[in-house]
Amino acid sequence: MTVSHFDIKKHGYFGADVGGTLAKIMFYEPENDPAISKVRDFVLSSTTYGSTGQRDEKLTVSLPKAKLHFILFETNRMRQAIKLIKAQNILSGVKNISVTGGGAFKFAELVKEELGCIIKKKDEMHCLIHGLNFLLKNVPDEVYYFANPEDDKDEEKAICDVREDMFPYLLVNVGTGVSILKVSNWDDFERVSGSGIGGGTYYGLCRLLTQAKDFSATLEEAVKGDDNSCNMTVGDIYGGSYESLGLDANMTASFFGKLVMGDSYKENVKEADVCKALLYMVTNNVGQIAYLNARLQGLKNIYFAGNFLRTNKIAMKYLSKAIHFWSGGEMKALFLQHEGFFGACGAFLDSEQPNSCESS
Amino acid sequence: MTVSHFDIKKHGYFGADVGGTLAKIMFYEPENDPAISKVRDFVLSSTTYGSTGQRDEKLTVSLPKAKLHFILFETNRMRQAIKLIKAQNILSGVKNISVTGGGAFKFAELVKEELGCIIKKKDEMHCLIHGLNFLLKNVPDEVYYFANPEDDKDEEKAICDVREDMFPYLLVNVGTGVSILKVSNWDDFERVSGSGIGGGTYYGLCRLLTQAKDFSATLEEAVKGDDNSCNMTVGDIYGGSYESLGLDANMTASFFGKLVMGDSYKENVKEADVCKALLYMVTNNVGQIAYLNARLQGLKNIYFAGNFLRTNKIAMKYLSKAIHFWSGGEMKALFLQHEGFFGACGAFLDSEQPNSCESS
Repeated sequence: MTVSHFDIKKHGYFGADVGGTLAKIMFYEPENDPAISKVRDFVLSSTTYGSTGQRDEKLTVSLPKAKLHFILFETNRMRQAIKLIKAQNILSGVKNISVTGGGAFKFAELVKEELGCIIKKKDEMHCLIHGLNFLLKNVPDEVYYFANPEDDKDEEKAICDVREDMFPYLLVNVGTGVSILKVSNWDDFERVSGSGIGGGTYYGLCRLLTQAKDFSATLEEAVKGDDNSCNMTVGDIYGGSYESLGLDANMTASFFGKLVMGDSYKENVKEADVCKALLYMVTNNVGQIAYLNARLQGLKNIYFAGNFLRTNKIAMKYLSKAIHFWSGGEMKALFLQHEGFFGACGAFLDSEQPNSCESS
Repeated sequence: MTVSHFDIKKHGYFGADVGGTLAKIMFYEPENDPAISKVRDFVLSSTTYGSTGQRDEKLTVSLPKAKLHFILFETNRMRQAIKLIKAQNILSGVKNISVTGGGAFKFAELVKEELGCIIKKKDEMHCLIHGLNFLLKNVPDEVYYFANPEDDKDEEKAICDVREDMFPYLLVNVGTGVSILKVSNWDDFERVSGSGIGGGTYYGLCRLLTQAKDFSATLEEAVKGDDNSCNMTVGDIYGGSYESLGLDANMTASFFGKLVMGDSYKENVKEADVCKALLYMVTNNVGQIAYLNARLQGLKNIYFAGNFLRTNKIAMKYLSKAIHFWSGGEMKALFLQHEGFFGACGAFLDSEQPNSCESS
């Protein structure tokens, strides 16, 4: 896929991924195109729009004859965003917008009424894979890993340039649940496994077990907690390491297993400990299942993506540690700079394709 | 390993596995041996001993020239059991008893003082594997599976005679944590994987989330619960199945993920639902990790054993369902009639071996 073959008449300027919580937009800015001056002026005039809209300048991608810009806002501000666009007359002349995510269905009528645009609904998984493949190919520093996976505090990132040797790879998409896909080529992917223990398990159990008022608050708690007030280690069972089996004394033998040992343990557990133990449990398990599937498929590159990882560096560090542990240091957990924007990018790329999805 | 080569002078009559909660004993009864008449008369006089001792007659194994009997009692009755044995003078002439489990260390002094017997401490994992291998080889109906894994209600068991083709196999030992071992031959095994999401996770989280007074109570609740008041299905996300990825609408997409959807869901969740959702989460995950490891090791036979499964038919049914699901119906979860007694059996078999373990 080359980078300068976009026909604006077919592709438009936008791709969008409207999820339950966040709406993500990719804006394609071709060089020297007077037709888009109004849109460009509006988008580039600021890095914030309305009360929640944000453009992340660090994510801007320079292609040979165009730039890609990435914007997000809260989906519950969608109606206000549409009003703003209408008032500024930004989308005059745009007939179609390619949209993926649940909002493609939810807001189609409103967009047609207010802006006169047709929303072309695109399959989420196709958009995710196409957007990811495009950015992997065109952004030299798209992929990174944590240089010191065993050190929870050290967040030094290292770049991994995969542009010359992209396929095949394993994509582990950690959202509310977890999907594991083998991506063999540009358009060739299959879901090889998954797990019901994902972001929803973490936050759902946090909601049952703590007073934390939102997802961010549980992560702030997790940083402060001590998971070993909940978790049973090998040392708790054997009084030390179990050497003949190669199990270190500090290894977690049972998540939440310490609570079985007596009421005094239960009384000592703080909410921060519960958040940390849950985060460790979920990410360690995702890492293990990802590793086992990578081994089964004979794949070396494992990318972790998905909403659960957005602004969740602790989870990424835990995933790095898990892959390091389960692979005996042979594999790395790979992460992506444009995390969260692949669907929007893919919707833009797919805009000329006829395969829009329909609500089931 | 033949079945009639036991030298009583070397092996003694007993093997024991003294765990944190339960003590398990195997009694070896050779034919026509007057030296053991006192012990035999005591053991066979009843199927109950003291307040918690129980012999399960259904488990008695008839070998060509001997019988094996299986007895268990609560470890907290150990002191009373030792007093009873002393008062009845049952172990007169027995110099050594082979014991595995934590109690091998805990009660060694007391047994020596009161009964004049030396406790020979045996490695837990070795005893487990040796005992299991011996019973797999000598008991035609040792292995069974559930004939209808997809039907939660139907508990029809089917026998699987493995005596002629025992090795290699995967042993998934589900206790507080989970150990996964590849057993290649009588004395040849290695721990290939494991999981910290096991029985301790289930009961530990139940203790944090419910008022259930003990482990059995949580299982009684689980039978009555509806896990879908906690768990998010594919249908909850997509409004139906996600056909292009082959995901059925009823499939669990995220354990406890429904609690993320809003406060009203949280208010509707009952303790029984939480127990069921936790049991489903833990067993499904154990099944998936077992399946992936079996595939990686190229193994067809997966045995599930361990304390978590004792008197826990619901967990076994869920494991059957999980293996059926993850393997697309190609594999079965196999269970064992003498569940819980392999360590005791192995301690007896290993009694002549010098490799006793020492506390680390």
